[in-house]
Amino acid sequence: MTVVAACQLGPRIGELDVNRDRAASAIAEAVGLGAEVVVLPELMSSGYAFTDTAEARASAEDVDGETLRQWAALARDHGIVLVGGFCEGAGDRVHNSAAVVDRTGVRAIYRKVHLWDRERLVFTPGDAAPPIVETQVGRLSTVVCYDLEFPEWVRIPALAGAQLLAAPVNWPANPGPDGERPAEVVRAQADAGVNRMPVVACDRVGDERGVGWVGGTVITDADGWVLAGGWSSDREQVVVAEVDLEAAADKRVGQMSDVHADRRAALYPTDGWPMPERHPR
Amino acid sequence: MTVVAACQLGPRIGELDVNRDRAASAIAEAVGLGAEVVVLPELMSSGYAFTDTAEARASAEDVDGETLRQWAALARDHGIVLVGGFCEGAGDRVHNSAAVVDRTGVRAIYRKVHLWDRERLVFTPGDAAPPIVETQVGRLSTVVCYDLEFPEWVRIPALAGAQLLAAPVNWPANPGPDGERPAEVVRAQADAGVNRMPVVACDRVGDERGVGWVGGTVITDADGWVLAGGWSSDREQVVVAEVDLEAAADKRVGQMSDVHADRRAALYPTDGWPMPERHPR
Repeated sequence: MTVVAACQLGPRIGELDVNRDRAASAIAEAVGLGAEVVVLPELMSSGYAFTDTAEARASAEDVDGETLRQWAALARDHGIVLVGGFCEGAGDRVHNSAAVVDRTGVRAIYRKVHLWDRERLVFTPGDAAPPIVETQVGRLSTVVCYDLEFPEWVRIPALAGAQLLAAPVNWPANPGPDGERPAEVVRAQADAGVNRMPVVACDRVGDERGVGWVGGTVITDADGWVLAGGWSSDREQVVVAEVDLEAAADKRVGQMSDVHADRRAALYPTDGWPMPERHPR
Repeated sequence: MTVVAACQLGPRIGELDVNRDRAASAIAEAVGLGAEVVVLPELMSSGYAFTDTAEARASAEDVDGETLRQWAALARDHGIVLVGGFCEGAGDRVHNSAAVVDRTGVRAIYRKVHLWDRERLVFTPGDAAPPIVETQVGRLSTVVCYDLEFPEWVRIPALAGAQLLAAPVNWPANPGPDGERPAEVVRAQADAGVNRMPVVACDRVGDERGVGWVGGTVITDADGWVLAGGWSSDREQVVVAEVDLEAAADKRVGQMSDVHADRRAALYPTDGWPMPERHPR
């Protein structure tokens, strides 16, 4: 079993020093709880609700910036695997990125491919598949927030053998019926279950320029059952669960089924999606 | 709004007459509740737990068989759209199929593509995409049971404009943590939500040769919220909800997002899945 923690925090927009301090404190708390993998929210370094690219660029950093240097130092000092979202500058462009960091340093950067809503006015989308990073706890991958709602995209790391999908997210508040789990959590559970791949989604809290958040941090097992969750839109908290990452190696279900081997890939889209037979009235 | 009903019944294996009678009674009950679309379970005609193809063949019928003739008559007499699962014989082969029937007759037959577990010892899988059927209530499609757990497959009718995905299912009992909604329901909710396409899954009940069932009949709206559900492994019941099928025409979410237009299809698999960048230890 691997102890996975998600730090549901409230970054402050444009206040990079404050955000680094909060991350460091929360990571220390998670490590105190035994965490071997620690996940931070999307855009933890910078906050989210930028007006435009120019404003985001002022909070952007590259892999040699202070935030990633801090995360590398924390991962080294604590001996953990750390995944967090940051505002990445690359020339004139700004990306909504996630870094995978371990005790040896920054291992991979992933740039969010599916930009949500107004993010397209601020960020340049990535165009590379989620990375597969071999770490001390197993094969880990990462996507960011809205990426989780495109099951085709989640399949990529799952089919490549990821044992844990760590997703920094900022889920904007989107109330559903009373008593219902957030829709984004339901979709993350499905992502996990149809792939037998545990998922950890680390959400944020705290109003930012009028945007509220789901605060729906969740850690699932390979079947998509919720092991631990946040469920608070305003309370910072460290959510922790023991996760069986070995379970992801076994895609079998029932006596003769296998969630990956049972795919009928030859029937799936090649170039363009196959058109159904149509039955007009 | 369209009134959709799912008849959660307990077919008896090999007792085709009994099953036809039960279906007819339940359909009449659904119509009495105002149903315009009625869905029956997977393999309603025949029961499920066949030992082998030879045994299933004895319960198999084709489009001219008594079950589909009955369904066509019921759809005509009640003026409804009817979707149900039946054991389809085609020469030596037996398919786990769904029929879409309306007042004009049998409109389409779909053969389950993703066979669950021991079904592969009994049935020949289909190899055609889910049909799109223009009906009096809108564009309807159908898949069967385990097909719902392959989001690539659900995308096909969704991208083709289906306004309701009607899925006959037989979900074998697979207990989860106390208080949790069945995993299959969670996945159906995600199928709906990531496509903004309402889903109705009609499950069965009643032990059959030692196999129990989830009894997880569910009707969702376009966001994947549960409008109505069964949640009983032994009680036959007709589950009804008013569903806004027009909502499926609008894929927008937030101010600038669209669950289909936001797909990055050019990055998705063409022939073979794109391999992630690998970061060995």
